[in-house]
Amino acid sequence: MESSSVCDENSEETGCSTLGVDSIDYSRTISDVSSFSERSEEHSGPFEMRSRGWPIAKLVDRPSPVLSRLSMKQRADVLKRRPTEDELELIREKFSKLLLGEDMSGSGKGVCTAAAISNAITNLYATVFGTCHKLGPLSREKKSMWRREMDCLLSVCDYIVEFYPSSQKLPDGSTVEVMATRPRSDIYVNLPALEKLDAMLIDILDSFRKPEFWYVDEGKQSFNSASQSFRKLSHRNEEKWWLPVPCVPDSGLQEKGRKELQKRRDCANQIHKAAVAINSTVLTEMEVPESYLAPLPKSGRLSVGDSIYRYMSTLDRFLPDYLLDCLDISSEHQALEMADRVEAAMHVWRRKASMAHSKSSWNVVKELVVDGDKNVVLASRAESLLLCLKQRFPGLSQTTLDTSKIQYNKDVGQAILESYSRVLESLAFNIVSWIDDVLFADKSARNG
Amino acid sequence: MESSSVCDENSEETGCSTLGVDSIDYSRTISDVSSFSERSEEHSGPFEMRSRGWPIAKLVDRPSPVLSRLSMKQRADVLKRRPTEDELELIREKFSKLLLGEDMSGSGKGVCTAAAISNAITNLYATVFGTCHKLGPLSREKKSMWRREMDCLLSVCDYIVEFYPSSQKLPDGSTVEVMATRPRSDIYVNLPALEKLDAMLIDILDSFRKPEFWYVDEGKQSFNSASQSFRKLSHRNEEKWWLPVPCVPDSGLQEKGRKELQKRRDCANQIHKAAVAINSTVLTEMEVPESYLAPLPKSGRLSVGDSIYRYMSTLDRFLPDYLLDCLDISSEHQALEMADRVEAAMHVWRRKASMAHSKSSWNVVKELVVDGDKNVVLASRAESLLLCLKQRFPGLSQTTLDTSKIQYNKDVGQAILESYSRVLESLAFNIVSWIDDVLFADKSARNG
Repeated sequence: MESSSVCDENSEETGCSTLGVDSIDYSRTISDVSSFSERSEEHSGPFEMRSRGWPIAKLVDRPSPVLSRLSMKQRADVLKRRPTEDELELIREKFSKLLLGEDMSGSGKGVCTAAAISNAITNLYATVFGTCHKLGPLSREKKSMWRREMDCLLSVCDYIVEFYPSSQKLPDGSTVEVMATRPRSDIYVNLPALEKLDAMLIDILDSFRKPEFWYVDEGKQSFNSASQSFRKLSHRNEEKWWLPVPCVPDSGLQEKGRKELQKRRDCANQIHKAAVAINSTVLTEMEVPESYLAPLPKSGRLSVGDSIYRYMSTLDRFLPDYLLDCLDISSEHQALEMADRVEAAMHVWRRKASMAHSKSSWNVVKELVVDGDKNVVLASRAESLLLCLKQRFPGLSQTTLDTSKIQYNKDVGQAILESYSRVLESLAFNIVSWIDDVLFADKSARNG
Repeated sequence: MESSSVCDENSEETGCSTLGVDSIDYSRTISDVSSFSERSEEHSGPFEMRSRGWPIAKLVDRPSPVLSRLSMKQRADVLKRRPTEDELELIREKFSKLLLGEDMSGSGKGVCTAAAISNAITNLYATVFGTCHKLGPLSREKKSMWRREMDCLLSVCDYIVEFYPSSQKLPDGSTVEVMATRPRSDIYVNLPALEKLDAMLIDILDSFRKPEFWYVDEGKQSFNSASQSFRKLSHRNEEKWWLPVPCVPDSGLQEKGRKELQKRRDCANQIHKAAVAINSTVLTEMEVPESYLAPLPKSGRLSVGDSIYRYMSTLDRFLPDYLLDCLDISSEHQALEMADRVEAAMHVWRRKASMAHSKSSWNVVKELVVDGDKNVVLASRAESLLLCLKQRFPGLSQTTLDTSKIQYNKDVGQAILESYSRVLESLAFNIVSWIDDVLFADKSARNG
C-alpha cells in the first residue's frame, strides 16, 4: 500500500459522508470540467487500449492469491495502529445505515444492499472530492475519511465467494472431490486493481505539495491586490468564472517542472483509461433490467431511424466510422441520444435473434450463428457502431441502459466494482483536466 | 450495566457463530427441557401479569431519554477498553454477512436485513447457549462472544428513528415548527428492558460459581467410580439420559442455600414472563403476511369445527375457560393445533368484519362496532379463547401465524426485538427448569 494513504496518528477524524435518499447522478464525469482541444489526440478512450490486451495488466501486477485473500487485512494495515472507539462507532453507523437501506424508519422499505453501497460510494466521493478544484494534497481529514469509509464499504467484498471443484486428501491416502470457496473472480481481478489506481491518484495529488504554480480564486479577486499575478491569469475556463484559475511565473514553468507535470498527466490519463475499462466491463456484465427491455419498440429500424437503418442493413461491409462521419454529430448531447438509440436497436435485434433460436441467450446465439441471420448481423453492427461512438466521445455520460442497469442491479459485488471504478474514473478525468489547465497557463505565459 | 457482563481484558476471543442458510427453528422454548409439575402454579403465562400493568415497569426502570439515545455508547462502554484489530475485523465480517443476506455469492438473492438479523441472533444464541445444560457461569470466551456479537447486531437499532413535530427557536426570537427525530418508540421502550433482562440472566448464571450441588454426566458415569454421589442421582429427566443430572449432599441443601435457590428461580421466572410479554407484543404488532391470509378458508366455522363454532356463536356469555375444560386438551401438540385453528378463524372473522365496514382495518372496526356484528363478536371470542389457550400452555411453540410473521417480516426493529426477546425467553425458561431439577434432587434427598 502506498505510504501516502497511511493515516496520521494524530489526525482528527471528523465529519462523515451523508447517505441521502436523494437521487444520485451517475454521469460518467463531473460536468464542470471543460474539454481541452490539445488533449484530444491523447484521449482516445478505453477501446484502443483494450485492443492491445487487458489494460490493467500494464498498470498493476495481478496480486498473488494469498495477498488477494488477505485484502481486508491489507486494508486494515493501512491504519497501522489500534482502532479507536470512535472508529468502531463509525463502522457500526456506516454498516447499520447500509443494512437499513437508507430507510431510517427501520421498516425495511429502503433500497437493496447493492443500491445502498453504490449510493454510499457515490456520496462519499462527492463529500471528499466534490469541493476539490485544485491540484494539491487532500487535507488530512479528507484523506483519512476517504480511506476509512472506503475501507468499510469495500470490506463486504471479502465475504463474496464462489464455489469451485477441488479435491481433498483423506487420511487413508485416497482423494475425494469437494467444493471449495474462493473470492469471486470478477472481484478477485478488479478490486485490487481499483485499489491500486485509487492509491496512485492520491499519490499524484500528494505530489503537488510544493508546486511552481499557484491558484487565484478569480471570483474573490480584486483588480488592485495581487495585480502582479493577476496579469498572468489564463482564461481556459472563462465561462466557469467561480473556479480557481492556475497561475504560473512570468517566464512559465521550469523545463524540469513542465516535464514532470506532463509525466503525471500521462499517468492520470492511463489511470482514467483503466478505470473506464473496468467500469465498462462491469456494466457490460450487469443484467439488462426487464424494465428496460419491456418498452423497447418491436423493430430496431424504428429506434435508429430509416437512413441509419438503410446504411446498416444494405452494405456488405459495414464501416461504423464512415457512418459517424456522415452523421456529423457535433455535441455530446447529440452523441448520447444517438448512443441510446443504437443501444436500444441492438437489444431489439438481439432479442429477435435469440427468439429465433429457441430463446437462447445472446452469448449463445452469436456463437452459433456465424453469419446469415439478419438480426444477428444487425445486432453486431449496432454493437460496433456504439463502440465507435463511445470512442469518439470518451467523456460521454452513461446511456439510459447503463443508468437503468445501475438502478436495478442487485449484485453487491458488481455494485461495488461499478461505483468504485466510476468515481475513480471521475477523479482521474478531473486530475488530467486540472493539469491541462496548468499546462495551458504555462503555454500562454511563454507565448505572451 | 452489570459488572458480570464486562469482558475480561485478557479474554481470548475465539470462534464465531455461524450464519447458516439452514432453516431456523422458531420454537418458543428449547424442547429438551421437560416440564415439572411443581412449577405449574407459578407458571401462569404473561397475561395474568399483563393485566396488572406493563410488566417490564416492575423489573426495570424506564431509562432516561439521554441514556437511551446513548445506548450504543453504553454498550460500547461494556468493553471498557480500546477495541482490537481483531474485533474490528469481526464486526466487519458480521455486518458484511448481514449485508449479503446470507447469500455469499454476492448476487443479492439472499434474505432481507430483517430476516438476516433475526437468524443471526437465533444462531448466536444456539452457538453460545446450545450446549449449556447446567447452572453455572458461562465460560469467559462464550460470555465475551455473546456480548460482542449481540452488541454488533443490536447497534443497528441506534439508527432507527421516527419523526415527531418539534419547534425550533430562531435567532430573532420567533419559533418555527420543525420535524425532529427520536428513537422509534417500540425500540425505545423494549430494547433497554431486554438488555437489562439479558444482564440479569447472565448474573443469575454467574451466581452459581460455587454451588452446594454438582452435576454427574450419567451417560459417561460408571457404577464403580463415584458411587457415593451416584446413589443420590435423582431421575427427573429419566427419558433424557444424556443430560447431566444434578446431585446434592446426602442431607440435601442447606436451608440458606435452598432459599437462595428459590429466590433465583422466582427471579428467572419473572424474567421469563417479561420476555414472553415483550415477544407477544412485538409479534402482535407485526404485519399479518398476505401469504397467511390468502389460503384461509372462507368461513371461520370450517376452521374451528362445528362443535366449537356452535359454542362460540350461540351462547350470550362466552366462557373460554369452560370451553377449554370441555375440550380436554391433553398434549402440547393438541394445544398448538387448536391454537392454529382458532387463530385462523379469528382472522377469517376479522377479515369479514373489516370487509363489511368499507375495508377498514381490524383496529378501526373493533372500536366502531361495539356489538351487534356477528363477525366482530366471533373474532373477539376467538381472540380470548386463544389467550386462554396460551395461558394454559405457557411453553407452547409458536403458532403457524407467528412463524409466518417472523418469516415474512421486513421491519428491522421488530426483527431484533422479536428474536432477542425469544432467545431470552428460552434462556430464562431453561434456567428455571435447571433450578427445578436441583430443587427436585434436594427434595428427593431429604425425603429419601
